[in-house]
Amino acid sequence: MTAPTPPVKKISTPWSVQGPFKNAESLERRIGEMPISEHVGKADWKTEKHVPVIECPDKIAPDQIFDVTVMIGKEIAHPNTTAHHIRWMSLYFHPEGEKFSYQVARVEFTAHGEGAQGVDTSTIYTHHKATVSMKTQKPGTLYAVSLCNIHGLWESEKKLLVG
Amino acid sequence: MTAPTPPVKKISTPWSVQGPFKNAESLERRIGEMPISEHVGKADWKTEKHVPVIECPDKIAPDQIFDVTVMIGKEIAHPNTTAHHIRWMSLYFHPEGEKFSYQVARVEFTAHGEGAQGVDTSTIYTHHKATVSMKTQKPGTLYAVSLCNIHGLWESEKKLLVG
Amino acid sequence: MTAPTPPVKKISTPWSVQGPFKNAESLERRIGEMPISEHVGKADWKTEKHVPVIECPDKIAPDQIFDVTVMIGKEIAHPNTTAHHIRWMSLYFHPEGEKFSYQVARVEFTAHGEGAQGVDTSTIYTHHKATVSMKTQKPGTLYAVSLCNIHGLWESEKKLLVG
Amino acid sequence: MTAPTPPVKKISTPWSVQGPFKNAESLERRIGEMPISEHVGKADWKTEKHVPVIECPDKIAPDQIFDVTVMIGKEIAHPNTTAHHIRWMSLYFHPEGEKFSYQVARVEFTAHGEGAQGVDTSTIYTHHKATVSMKTQKPGTLYAVSLCNIHGLWESEKKLLVG
Repeated sequence: MTAPTPPVKKISTPWSVQGPFKNAESLERRIGEMPISEHVGKADWKTEKHVPVIECPDKIAPDQIFDVTVMIGKEIAHPNTTAHHIRWMSLYFHPEGEKFSYQVARVEFTAHGEGAQGVDTSTIYTHHKATVSMKTQKPGTLYAVSLCNIHGLWESEKKLLVG
Repeated sequence: MTAPTPPVKKISTPWSVQGPFKNAESLERRIGEMPISEHVGKADWKTEKHVPVIECPDKIAPDQIFDVTVMIGKEIAHPNTTAHHIRWMSLYFHPEGEKFSYQVARVEFTAHGEGAQGVDTSTIYTHHKATVSMKTQKPGTLYAVSLCNIHGLWESEKKLLVG
Repeated sequence: MTAPTPPVKKISTPWSVQGPFKNAESLERRIGEMPISEHVGKADWKTEKHVPVIECPDKIAPDQIFDVTVMIGKEIAHPNTTAHHIRWMSLYFHPEGEKFSYQVARVEFTAHGEGAQGVDTSTIYTHHKATVSMKTQKPGTLYAVSLCNIHGLWESEKKLLVG
Repeated sequence: MTAPTPPVKKISTPWSVQGPFKNAESLERRIGEMPISEHVGKADWKTEKHVPVIECPDKIAPDQIFDVTVMIGKEIAHPNTTAHHIRWMSLYFHPEGEKFSYQVARVEFTAHGEGAQGVDTSTIYTHHKATVSMKTQKPGTLYAVSLCNIHGLWESEKKLLVG
């Protein structure tokens, strides 16, 4: 059932050679391939309504439980209808200097007006904003990724200091 | 591959005959069956650490976006380790007098200390508390359901007035 | 913000007194309360299109990895449109004689035709059927729960023997 | 609460300038920023156990419902313990020539041996393999992304022809 393996060519600027995979011998990219990451939008949230905005303290104490709020459309409102809405947002944390990211939380926004009488009839809507709580002894970077049901994946990030 | 259908017997007190299925002709319960709902714990959150606590206004205006906070272990702390933690909480809304419930949100708590050096080595933990936002024109009941990775499903509820 | 606690009355037939909570001293049910479980539909899948059907061997060997297929609308097709579709199914396993259930898997069906040109324009649809794999040394009961975006929660179950 | 905006510098090789954002005027990357996508591993699944393998027909008919199986560790087994396991896999589809990706499904692998007696005591484990079903009139690329609870995000892809 699997497609025949396409010809392999080492390329000089693979997207993931930065970061944890810098020295991975196995890192190869096949001709014509493009990772999903090149389909994740990144832009200024002040001008692009899809970009998640991360709000939390810039610096926290080790093991202090702190809140992280992620919202979509802080400056420019995003629609919230049965036909067009934000489906979920996911929060990751990458400790500084480490190789791998941890997923912290994922929030599904599930009600978008659908009802027995048709689209946008229930009056019940989940807004695209959520606050979760976490702790860490390590500084690093928080990443938020969100999914619009028709405009795909978007991401943003925020540094976190510990001390 | 499917098991032979067990003998069917109408029983007099099926658990779900209350609510939307009161008059469902097709409602039958097979001998020896017990619905998943009988495995969902319900107790006073002041004495049972697993019970989710729902906090939101008692009354909201129609179409007003309001916050709903759900937390586990408000009075009695729940552990948060790689071996034992709250996995997720889900929020439902059942409009008064209607037949069906809507899921509003689901929040996964994903980081519980696991790291390359073993259990409880990463220092990164997601706390079992989250705030989501919603709106409705209809009054009804909010239901929170949560999952402990070793003590299963728990639920609680809160009435919501609109006016 | 929390509503004043309603008066508490011990009732004689609380829904969850069967199962793990039979002897729980803390089990009380407040006047007017109805658990989310009473909003979970249960019916014969041959006549009710929402009911998930669980297909797997009736008996497996200890530690044998086996497939479990859950599908909605096996006999009577369920719609799959942007306005009306199955959102997810969740699979639980309750070991015989134990107090708590384990969640085995949850599958989100995410694409339902929504596109930049409007509802049902993308041509991309996720079908409401999935197969996951698991193992256990213990016999017990598999529970499938599914969510229709407008007709709420439904469940079914299947016994699993080990030997 | 938000950190002061860091200085902005247009850079010449932003990761996402390929794909849908090629001409986005708003695309800027701040000094020191690295997108989450650079933390998503990509490698040959024959030598790297984390890489999800996508199996489905190479070519399907328009509107034909077909199965897609995603598994981790096809050639080299991945551990499945309370301490170290695959948490979920997500499947996306990017129609050829379009700007945005659609999420098709997400499968959570939820049981990893945790029990009341400690880690790896329940005997119940979800295996990291799942099959979902979908249809499309458009050709494009399927992307699988998976999360290891301690080794982070990994991805792979497979072309899909329609005709």
